[in-house]
Amino acid sequence: MAETEISTLGEFGLIEHLTENMPPVNTSTEIGVGDDAAVLSYGEKKTLVTTDLLLEGIHFDLRYVALKHLGYKAAVVNFSDIYAMNGTPKQITVSLGISKRFTVEHIEALYAGIRLACEKYGVDIVGGDTSASVTGLIISITCIGEADADKIVYRSGARDTDIVCVSGDLGAAYMGLQLLERELNVSKDMGNDFQPAFEGREYLLERQLKPEARRDVIAELAELGVKPTAMMDVSDGLSSELLHICKASNTGCRIYEDRIPIDYQTAVMAEEFNMNLYTVALNGGEDYELLFTVPLADYDKVASMKSARVIGRITKPELGCYMSTRDDNEIELVAQGWNAFKE
Amino acid sequence: MAETEISTLGEFGLIEHLTENMPPVNTSTEIGVGDDAAVLSYGEKKTLVTTDLLLEGIHFDLRYVALKHLGYKAAVVNFSDIYAMNGTPKQITVSLGISKRFTVEHIEALYAGIRLACEKYGVDIVGGDTSASVTGLIISITCIGEADADKIVYRSGARDTDIVCVSGDLGAAYMGLQLLERELNVSKDMGNDFQPAFEGREYLLERQLKPEARRDVIAELAELGVKPTAMMDVSDGLSSELLHICKASNTGCRIYEDRIPIDYQTAVMAEEFNMNLYTVALNGGEDYELLFTVPLADYDKVASMKSARVIGRITKPELGCYMSTRDDNEIELVAQGWNAFKE
Repeated sequence: MAETEISTLGEFGLIEHLTENMPPVNTSTEIGVGDDAAVLSYGEKKTLVTTDLLLEGIHFDLRYVALKHLGYKAAVVNFSDIYAMNGTPKQITVSLGISKRFTVEHIEALYAGIRLACEKYGVDIVGGDTSASVTGLIISITCIGEADADKIVYRSGARDTDIVCVSGDLGAAYMGLQLLERELNVSKDMGNDFQPAFEGREYLLERQLKPEARRDVIAELAELGVKPTAMMDVSDGLSSELLHICKASNTGCRIYEDRIPIDYQTAVMAEEFNMNLYTVALNGGEDYELLFTVPLADYDKVASMKSARVIGRITKPELGCYMSTRDDNEIELVAQGWNAFKE
Repeated sequence: MAETEISTLGEFGLIEHLTENMPPVNTSTEIGVGDDAAVLSYGEKKTLVTTDLLLEGIHFDLRYVALKHLGYKAAVVNFSDIYAMNGTPKQITVSLGISKRFTVEHIEALYAGIRLACEKYGVDIVGGDTSASVTGLIISITCIGEADADKIVYRSGARDTDIVCVSGDLGAAYMGLQLLERELNVSKDMGNDFQPAFEGREYLLERQLKPEARRDVIAELAELGVKPTAMMDVSDGLSSELLHICKASNTGCRIYEDRIPIDYQTAVMAEEFNMNLYTVALNGGEDYELLFTVPLADYDKVASMKSARVIGRITKPELGCYMSTRDDNEIELVAQGWNAFKE
């Protein structure tokens, strides 16, 4: 692959180069990259804004993450936050800090992933900033979305007797990360002869490296005529997010161990790593599934959903937040969620 | 000053702590920090979005920039981009990457500057992200603003015979930076006895450390009933920005050396450093003044402005972009603007 130093294009050249041939797909995008600011136009809709900062050495390790996958994931995790408000992502801005070891081709690969995600989810890139960085790669994405005023779902709307649901399955992205780290360590000892043991574990890798935002869940809820009372995306682990909803809504909750959705590969891998499967599913993080609550009256509708399942119920606040286990014990939920500031 | 490790608050605790007691000042801010995304509401107005990434060791040096000033400047440079579209900044999101040498008190100081800027300019902080960083401080701010559809000013609207104007004066922020760097180098040799020679140079330091966005220019233009045909803020130097406007508008331009606004302190300092004063004024950067063009018919109005002055005119593209000097030479304008990717 030809390698081009970034200084040959410069800041403006790089942005122009990376965003060329991307006509806007949203009518709300009036003017994108190229002026002091993008111009958006929202009529009667509400505007949603979310932002995410990803740092090399903290959030990703380029020894086992391809730049294209990284770009895809960096965009998708922002879309996920907009869907978690029951909205639709429409535009992103992308700011990059780039150290000297990266070439134009590297950044093109990163952007190819961002563009792929934007194409898949119908989102326009409307601006950004690029800069040299002293160390490592920095990715800051801000996503703007829209929603009808009466459709927006906050964290604070859960009420006693509501049903708790979650989409997809949990813990797979975390086990994918464990697998990647183990194989990376083995490869260091074995050198060039090394073949990583990924066969049969493709699902775990995909969940870690190329997560999707659950647009389909939002669509299925809309089809069923169900508006959740509260919703979040699961980025820091089910326990952490459920505690956020209960705190914001001033409620307690009961979830049931035998209702927690876990993929077969996740279970096999947890066994192999001698990890507690429910710790993995409750605290693993990076699932980007949707956690939501609905009124009891909607039970039959959500019980019929393909993309999500019922895992528990909302209670009065004094009952606390617990998981009922298969053997009828009650385990208090704690937020072991990922904290970038902990050692 | 008490020092509190950031890990004691964690990511969510830190954001809550930093943004508490900031009720929204804009009716367009419906929900700020605390959910997956902020919720904004714009009726018939257009929405403007701009973003800026500031990295320690590239854009700022904490050996001579106080964190509070840095926060103020980081916010103001984004507001400046919104004013440069003839809009009004309304909300920002703030993402921070924070290395281990920073305490909660450090980040509070940084935020105090951001909050001061927000209060002064009437802007709400509606979200953000914080993370540990392997090295140094990272600040990524996205600003959202609004404008009436028929008031937005792009870079591409300049036309032959238009008048070129610029607000304030140029080159002072650059000379302030030179002064700070010189005094820092001297202080290294002299140790604790060192008193930096800043007396009489306060204006240069203020321009570098605590720039303001030219909201007053936008207001004065509105009062006069003048809508610029093209406008940019001067962040990379007058030459670079003027070339951007001429390229986007497919025009040439003539500016006049004796019309370039330069402060007395800037001139004295350039002399002291043996630098060409017009190179400083044309290429220094970080002025955050507004550069704009208006139709010839508005000449009398802009000639009467307190906050800006006429410096030249727009020409047909084949006449190129030149500065006419006092001794009737013509110097071609070149973009020596700051490029973070150059050595």
